[in-house]
Amino acid sequence: MTSPQRIAVIGAGAVGSYYGGRLAEAGHDVHFLMRRDYEAVRARGLRVASVDGDFVLTNPTVARASEEMGPVDWVLCALKATSIDEAERLVRPCVGPNTRIIVLMNGLGLEERFADWCGPARIFGGLAFTCINRGDPGEVHHLRYGAITLGHLQDDPRELDAALALWAESKVQINGAPSLLRARWEKLCWNVPFNGLAVAGGGITTDKIVGDPDLRDVARLLMEEVVAAGNADLAAHSEATRIDGEAVISRMFELTDAMGAYRPSTLIDFTEGRPMEVDAMFAEPLRRAQALGVDAPRLTLLTFVMDARNQPLGPRA
Amino acid sequence: MTSPQRIAVIGAGAVGSYYGGRLAEAGHDVHFLMRRDYEAVRARGLRVASVDGDFVLTNPTVARASEEMGPVDWVLCALKATSIDEAERLVRPCVGPNTRIIVLMNGLGLEERFADWCGPARIFGGLAFTCINRGDPGEVHHLRYGAITLGHLQDDPRELDAALALWAESKVQINGAPSLLRARWEKLCWNVPFNGLAVAGGGITTDKIVGDPDLRDVARLLMEEVVAAGNADLAAHSEATRIDGEAVISRMFELTDAMGAYRPSTLIDFTEGRPMEVDAMFAEPLRRAQALGVDAPRLTLLTFVMDARNQPLGPRA
Repeated sequence: MTSPQRIAVIGAGAVGSYYGGRLAEAGHDVHFLMRRDYEAVRARGLRVASVDGDFVLTNPTVARASEEMGPVDWVLCALKATSIDEAERLVRPCVGPNTRIIVLMNGLGLEERFADWCGPARIFGGLAFTCINRGDPGEVHHLRYGAITLGHLQDDPRELDAALALWAESKVQINGAPSLLRARWEKLCWNVPFNGLAVAGGGITTDKIVGDPDLRDVARLLMEEVVAAGNADLAAHSEATRIDGEAVISRMFELTDAMGAYRPSTLIDFTEGRPMEVDAMFAEPLRRAQALGVDAPRLTLLTFVMDARNQPLGPRA
Repeated sequence: MTSPQRIAVIGAGAVGSYYGGRLAEAGHDVHFLMRRDYEAVRARGLRVASVDGDFVLTNPTVARASEEMGPVDWVLCALKATSIDEAERLVRPCVGPNTRIIVLMNGLGLEERFADWCGPARIFGGLAFTCINRGDPGEVHHLRYGAITLGHLQDDPRELDAALALWAESKVQINGAPSLLRARWEKLCWNVPFNGLAVAGGGITTDKIVGDPDLRDVARLLMEEVVAAGNADLAAHSEATRIDGEAVISRMFELTDAMGAYRPSTLIDFTEGRPMEVDAMFAEPLRRAQALGVDAPRLTLLTFVMDARNQPLGPRA
């Protein structure tokens, strides 16, 4: 097992709080950067209701500023992708010479943003496949699934082993990804159709998408476009591996069929009037598809619609 | 020239008022069924500001109910397509044994609805290509273009000649369509991309669509899908004629490039919270494409989005 590590969770929303909480539960020294929930967590701790077992951190270490935490062994960055421009400022105070960073965010091209200012060797991507929402301040509801797929930005197997070891004692199921880029595209096979159609449809839950034959078909065709773009992107990066489209698409439907009336994170953002992760989740995959000459008609139109839905002031407002 | 005809305008919004007004100006006996503007027109007449010459009908014949008008030679039905279920009730009191009906509405399959209850021989389609909006009550602003393409539901050339003669003395430019079905699909080449993207984009004017390279491309690809579906539909109806896609698409862009910041009717409906003509303009073309095995990925997604935008209560409402 790994010795206890010093960890900073940057962006302690539902996802960051849950996974950081699981690392604390496993004995690591976890510091949470909190904004909205700071007072509540200081007063009552962090309370997690989880399908994998409830737990409470009665007195977690919370900070209002990254400077209070200082350098750590690991940064778990669980910011929204819409905050990517703030990430460097928020993460940098926690980064020392040997700090590694796990980018636990949705979308494409985010690890590269971190690598731009602190090099690629210390950057990992984490892909959480989970149904998880915030509850009252200081409360997290973990509803279903929960595995994280971890990859290293340079696909270095020894670095990946180090990241896997971090989670070894935790209750989180971790899958190592030999190709981070492939894992990112595979995750988009879920996010693009389900986060997208939920919002494009004006606010529908995942059961409506998989339960309507026409919508299910649109979802599948969107996935096929994502697979085609992803495989072209992998080839352009000289990676030998490819996405097995049929296997991934079947798995995504199987997982989603079991989800019930789930509200993807983007739908919650939309409903609550917050900015949605359109750039990293839709526009960046589309830009890559276009640059690579991959025809992606549904993704093009969906991205346009998501951009429009992301405007806070529609004509009816 | 044709002798003065007795005409009932059913649905005297901007389009019905303008074209009915031009028929009255040409000497016909025109009766307007009015709801919103009844009092204003009774008090101050019908005032039209038009690029083809302003005019005022100082004392037009207006009615609140079709029964007041009784049978006529011609019905000019300019209802919104969203009111198609009311059309029979509103039009029937004006229909005698020799009455002909011009369906001056947007979308596909509407003439067939009239034919269902009074036979196809008397049914014509009118396609107005014009930029026209309502102003204050009793006022119409005719901004640009204005030609009507007329076709007969059974493509009977003698019947078509009778309809053309009706407009001979008017200032309206009339084009005869040897194939009404082809004309309907050609009109959709404008309505689908421009009415659609204006609303899907959250409320953008046509200049934004033609002026953005990506959006212009989406518009073109939508038109290509409409052309493909239209040609399959023409073939399925054993019509010898086909849409010349490149010619129609070029013309649509040329016309739209000159429009400036035009707000398509559907965008105005959307902005004002009224039901949009989604079924006749999007869903019916899509149903035909699907039934004919024509791949229409952008139309599929756009129709889904338009359906969602047509729901009065989104999650932000």
